[in-house]
Parts: sequence; C-alpha cells; structure tokens
Amino acid sequence: MKEFDTIAAIATPVGEGGISIIRVSGEKAIEISDSVFRAKNGKKISEMNTYTMRYGNIIDRETDDIIDEVIVALMKGPKSFTAEDVVEINCHGGVVATNKVLEQVIKAGARIAEPGEFTKRAFLNGRIDLSQAEAVMDIISAKTEVSMKAAVQQSKGRLSREINVLCDNLLNVLAAIEHTVDFTEDDEEIDPSVTENIKHKVEEFLQNTNNLLETAEEGKIIREGLSMVIVGKPNVGKSSLLNVLLNEKRAIVTDIAGTTRDVIEEYINLDGIPIKIVDTAGIRDTEDVVERIGVERSREKINEADLVVLMLDMSRELDNEDREIIESVKGKKYICILNKIDLNTKLNDKIVDELENKIETSTVTGFGIDVLKEKIKDMFFNGNIDTESIIITNTRHKQALFRAKENCEIALKEINNNAFLDLVSIYITSALKALGEITGAEIEEDLVNKIFSDFCVGK
Amino acid sequence: MKEFDTIAAIATPVGEGGISIIRVSGEKAIEISDSVFRAKNGKKISEMNTYTMRYGNIIDRETDDIIDEVIVALMKGPKSFTAEDVVEINCHGGVVATNKVLEQVIKAGARIAEPGEFTKRAFLNGRIDLSQAEAVMDIISAKTEVSMKAAVQQSKGRLSREINVLCDNLLNVLAAIEHTVDFTEDDEEIDPSVTENIKHKVEEFLQNTNNLLETAEEGKIIREGLSMVIVGKPNVGKSSLLNVLLNEKRAIVTDIAGTTRDVIEEYINLDGIPIKIVDTAGIRDTEDVVERIGVERSREKINEADLVVLMLDMSRELDNEDREIIESVKGKKYICILNKIDLNTKLNDKIVDELENKIETSTVTGFGIDVLKEKIKDMFFNGNIDTESIIITNTRHKQALFRAKENCEIALKEINNNAFLDLVSIYITSALKALGEITGAEIEEDLVNKIFSDFCVGK
Repeated sequence: MKEFDTIAAIATPVGEGGISIIRVSGEKAIEISDSVFRAKNGKKISEMNTYTMRYGNIIDRETDDIIDEVIVALMKGPKSFTAEDVVEINCHGGVVATNKVLEQVIKAGARIAEPGEFTKRAFLNGRIDLSQAEAVMDIISAKTEVSMKAAVQQSKGRLSREINVLCDNLLNVLAAIEHTVDFTEDDEEIDPSVTENIKHKVEEFLQNTNNLLETAEEGKIIREGLSMVIVGKPNVGKSSLLNVLLNEKRAIVTDIAGTTRDVIEEYINLDGIPIKIVDTAGIRDTEDVVERIGVERSREKINEADLVVLMLDMSRELDNEDREIIESVKGKKYICILNKIDLNTKLNDKIVDELENKIETSTVTGFGIDVLKEKIKDMFFNGNIDTESIIITNTRHKQALFRAKENCEIALKEINNNAFLDLVSIYITSALKALGEITGAEIEEDLVNKIFSDFCVGK
Repeated sequence: MKEFDTIAAIATPVGEGGISIIRVSGEKAIEISDSVFRAKNGKKISEMNTYTMRYGNIIDRETDDIIDEVIVALMKGPKSFTAEDVVEINCHGGVVATNKVLEQVIKAGARIAEPGEFTKRAFLNGRIDLSQAEAVMDIISAKTEVSMKAAVQQSKGRLSREINVLCDNLLNVLAAIEHTVDFTEDDEEIDPSVTENIKHKVEEFLQNTNNLLETAEEGKIIREGLSMVIVGKPNVGKSSLLNVLLNEKRAIVTDIAGTTRDVIEEYINLDGIPIKIVDTAGIRDTEDVVERIGVERSREKINEADLVVLMLDMSRELDNEDREIIESVKGKKYICILNKIDLNTKLNDKIVDELENKIETSTVTGFGIDVLKEKIKDMFFNGNIDTESIIITNTRHKQALFRAKENCEIALKEINNNAFLDLVSIYITSALKALGEITGAEIEEDLVNKIFSDFCVGK
C-alpha cells in the first residue's frame, strides 16, 4: 500500500442534525485522533480492536476544555473505506460542533481532505477501481431509485467485470497476432484462417461494445436526469402542469442549492426516470418563461433540453406568440400538450395539425397526465426501463468505449486490407488503453485528479 | 426501563454527503435491522457485541436486491444514546440512498421517529434529565463557540447540579418547618430562633436564585443570538457595514433556510457572541430597508431587535429621512454609526449631538469597526464574556427560576408577618415544583411533548 499523509473532513452532509461524522484517514489517523480524544474508560484508540467503538469526549488540547461528547469508531486498514487506518468521530450534528471537532483534529496534525480524496485513496490503494469510485459519487447524487440501482451495481464492480471481459477479448487478439507474427517467416504468407480468426474476434468485440454503447443514451438520463423544459405563453398552465407532475405520489423533489442561492434544480421521479425541470424558478415566479427571459435565452434553454414540452391552450385561439414558440421547438424532441381540454375548444389551426406527439390534457382534472408520462417513457426508454441489464451511465465511460470501438473499426479495416498485423496490433493496443481508462488500469494522473475533484468534500 | 416501540430516522443532516446514518432504537431494533441486513461474513447483528461494527448490505426483502453498501454499528441498551438497543446504519450519503435504507427499516416494522424522540427516550428512560436533553438540541443549533460551550456544560449536567443544590436548600427549609410543626404544641409559641433560621435559609436561596437569574439576559443572547437591525437611508453604507462584519476572520456565517426559501438568517460571530442580523436580505438586495419595507414594517423590525444600529452619512447633510429614522429608534438600545468619516464632513446638527453611543466609522478603510464591536460587548456583556460560570441560557429555565423566586419571596413575607408555617410550606413546595420543571423531575407530559417537538428529526 502507498503511503500518504493523514487527511480529515466532515463526511456527513453539512447542516443541523443529530449526528455528524468527522472522518480521519491515513498512517497517523489513530495517533492524531488519540491526541484529542479522552475515552470514558481512560483507554486509547490505539488499544481498540478494529470495527469497535468507544464513548468519550473530544478535548481542546490547549485548554483541556471539552469540545463535544463523541463516539469514535476505528476501522484499521486495509479493511476500511480508504484501505488505510480510518477513525470516524461521531459528534453532535450542527455547524459549530462539527467544525470545532474538525478544527481540533487539524490542529493535531491532520490535513483537510480535498473533495473526493477519501475515495481517491480507496482507488489509489487498489481497494476499488476507477469506475467503482465514480459509482460511489453516483450513489450519493442519485436522483431516483433507478439511478441508485445502476450506481450500486457499478459500485459492486459489475461494469468493471464487463470491461475486463472486453479487455480479455482484445488481449486474445493481441496474443493471436503476436503468435502469428512470431511463428511466421518474413517471406511466408499468413494462413488466411488465422487472419479470419483474428477478424472474427475483433468483430465479436465490436458487437459487444456496440451493445454497451447502445445503453449510453438511457444511461446518461438515468444518471444525470432527462432535462425537460416547459414552454408556452402566459396562463397556458405551465406551473399547473409542473405541480401535477411534482405532486405525484412517488415523486421525490430535491432542491439542490448550488453555489449561488438562485440556482435551484427540481427533479421529478417518473417511475424511476429522474426528470430535471429546467428553469423551474422562472415557471413558478412568473408563469411566463418566454417573456421573462427573452426569446434568445428561451431558445438557449430549449436547445439545452433533452425534451421540450410545448403547451398550447385549447380554450384560446392560436396567436402569434404561440406560433413563435412552435417555431422555436423545431428540430427538437418535443411533446405538444393541448391543455384546458375541459373548457370549450377554440384552438383550430393547421399549424397545430402538423405537430407531432400531441396529447390532450387538463391540468385541472388530471386528464391526460398518465398519457404524457407514458409518452416520455416511450420516447426515451422504448416504454420500458431495464434495471437488470448493465448500463453505461457515465459520459466518460461512453467516450472511452467509443474510442475503443473506433480503434477496433480501423483495425478491422486494416485486416480487410491485408495490412501488416503489427499495424493492426497498434490499433488494438490503443483500444485496450481506452478501456483501461474506464477502470483506471491505464490512466493519467491529471485525469484522475480531475475526476475526483468533482466529488463532494468528505467522500 | 420503560418499554417503547421501535423507532427509526435519519440522524445526520439531510443533503448530499459521504455518509448518512439511519438510527434505529427500541426493543426490536436488532431484530428489525437484522431482517434487512446481510453481513459480508454472514453473521447476524444479534450475534454482535455491543460497541462493534459490521460491514454488509441493506437488501430489499421482497426482491433481494441490494439497496446500499453499509456498516452497521450496535450499541446495546442501557449504554446507548436512548438507553435502549440502538442500531446505527451508516449508508452512503445522498437523498435517495438514505431514504431507501430508511424505507426498508420502516417496512421491516420500525416507526418513523418524531422530532426529538430519540432524546426524549433518553430522558424518559432516565439516562439524562430534561435540561441535559435540551442542551443536546442547543449543541446542534449553537451559533458560536461560546454558545456551544454553554450547551456542552449544560449537557454534562452542570445546570442540573446547580438546580439540585437549590432544591436541597428548599428541602431543608421544608424539613425544618415540618420538624418545628411536629414538635410544637398547638398553643405553644414557636421559638424565634427557629423562624429566624428558616428565614435565613429562604434568603440564602433567594440570593442564589437571583445570581442565576442575573445571567439570563446574557444567556439568552448566547443561546439565541443578539438580534441586530441596521437602519439608515439609502447609500449610507449598510451593506458595506454588514460585509465588513461578516468578513471578520473568525466569523462563521450560516445560512439557515427555513420553511420557505425566502427566510434567511445570517449570523456574525463577534468574539463568541452570535449576532443575528435582521432582514439581511433587505440590506443586500436594495441597500434600502426603510424604503423597501415601508416605515411601519421597519418600526416592527426595530422593535423586535435587541440592538439597533442607526447609520448616518457624515458626508451629507442631515435630511428628513434621517430625522424620521432617528425618531424611530427612540426608546431602543441603539448605537449611532457616523459613517464615511473618510470623506468631507457635512453633517452638523443638534439632533445628532443629542444621540448616544456615537461611533465614527469608515466602512471603506475599516476605521471604527473595532470600536463598534467593543461597544456591543460593553452594552450586553459589560465588556467581558464569562464562559466559565454557569449561565441560564434557556427562557424556559429562566421562567421556572423566576416562579421559584416569586414563591419564596411570598414565603419570606409570610414568615415576616408571622404567618403559620404550614402556609409558608405551601409556597416553598410550589417553588420546589417550579425548579423540578427545569430538570424534569416535576413536569407535565404535555410540556415534555412540547419541548421535544421543537427538536429536529433524527435527534
């Protein structure tokens, strides 16, 4: 195991709660924790067995004042989250209590952990691979039970095993090439059956890779959410639709305050599909997205979204504003909601006849909402979310798979062109390297740092 | 120990973080947890020793799917937070992961804990008294290290010991009365030295109680914060002053989102005194509190505040708006800031000469800010915050002490009037009952429920 300095951070979410945990990890985790902890029974943490806990106080070493009443838990490496010695100090929740305890640990010699540094150590110490480390973060930020399940499977190494199978495929190809090159005289023709065999292996690899890549579109939505924007003129029912969707029994709504208080994301849980509503604040505040943010910004929102919900009011005649909004969704995946079907219908226009994916609704009676939901599932998941199969949820993995695929396609072309097998092996090696980036077997330090810097502090 | 059903709740703050804890407490805590937990080593929680941990998975009992990877910790009663069997499930932080694990525990037979119910059980099971239970909540919501320290001391039973001494004082009085009544014939005069002795004891009690009550004003500020409102006409420098105060090196700024997103409280940590800035949003948004919220609401804010900071602009002549604002602070504790002292002085008015607590400042250069801070400490803590002595921080305790005091004052009066000692003992008994409300020795169930319902969920 590699040797690192000792790091510490608040591992629980920040805020007021019953308990907070300060996690300390590294060679001196026990020594440092012992210097600020006084057990009720007078014993040291260094005398504790692994996977046991002890009750006592964290004290200020300078004044001997009691900072907080705590329970410390010891998990000795390598059987710990980071594979290093880990001490977890369970103190009272609350901003001051938690920070005061952390402060004592830092004063005693630990360093504040960077975002994701605990998980990074678990990776660098070889306890988990890179895709498993990324899954840890995905579990934490999962928006629905489907996203959660995909992340848990990945954290258990399911994707890694699949990638390793693909790597083995390619290693077999390389071995076959090497064997052929080694045992073929320079002037000798290569046995066509050998080339055929190599070609077959590469084709098989490509088939498997394509199967995986096909899951990536759904996977991205499962992990990041389907971004959906609701557009329509004032009083068409945008905020009512939003409320109907948010009030669904199974919906979990999470408000995630970003770096500024203004950035608020709202998620709808549509049978496990996380749907991120774009510009909720706009809808809620003014019921008038287009007017408020201007046509330009509205177009921008529409372009960024995976799905546009275009709302028209059946009880009013089509006007220029409607036409402008209809124009703006062209070329996008959209659903057209014909709302207020419970009132007298006055909307009757050829432009509307030409629109696709029309659904009649009443946000007052709830009519048509189920149809809308089925439609969304149809458009993005062919009506059925497969939670059992392996899914590529991470764009980084998708890109690496795609590079592996491209290299193998070139390799295949070269084989068909009767190129030298040495040349073919270069492409296969590149493909292998791309796959290695997924599990972290082959990866630059900079990229590793970048991946973990997106993690939250304390993980 | 009393028998209760088994309860569960998320014990860590809600949000995204590395770890969350689901706490399960009660007679069936182990059995329920065992039914959803699969240890890596195949063993049951019921086979674990107390104060040990085990690694494994929480599973969905219906589908056998893995919900999350967890570490469970067992603390058997009575040596646990609630004095009951407690299982703490450490799962991945994050809203979905945490809720899914809690959901499994609830499906397996636990009940969602009410706010404060874990701490309430610690009280009802006799592990801690009521003032200690309240201190747990104060630790969690502490705004500065001084508030934290006061809460920790109270949680360690320091206040309880003091109250118990006072109770002993009164029990001695009652014993003396009883003895005198029992051994005095109906027609016999009571020995004046006996009455004198009882009187002396009551006086001593009153002295001790008054000493404690004198700490209550400071104590309330330490616990709840000093509410401060900054008033002044537009562009006088309100938001600059706020920023200078917030940017202090030792300041911790906590944003506590209330039930609506609009309610935001900001705290300044002034050498340990938590100062709650009233209507920060107003100051930040418009730099113009009075205009924005109207004179009436402004007066309301001023009336609610412990301290008004009235800001005048030295570089402009006094105008009617200033005069109106000056008028509005009359009768309040205020400090008058003469700002922009770095510019040419144009303010020269008899009204200003008559104001008290004037401090010249420049929020640009920082001039005068230290003087302001010392002034605040002078006005509320006589310049010195005593963190060693016992302090009454809780208004409920203050009121109970006050009732004890009132009863004893009446008792004293009756003794001086040569009333029957039986009558005196009634008042002493009432005083004793009032003190019992502080520690919970004498308290109605309704009041207990009310106190704990103010706690946060999971504590």
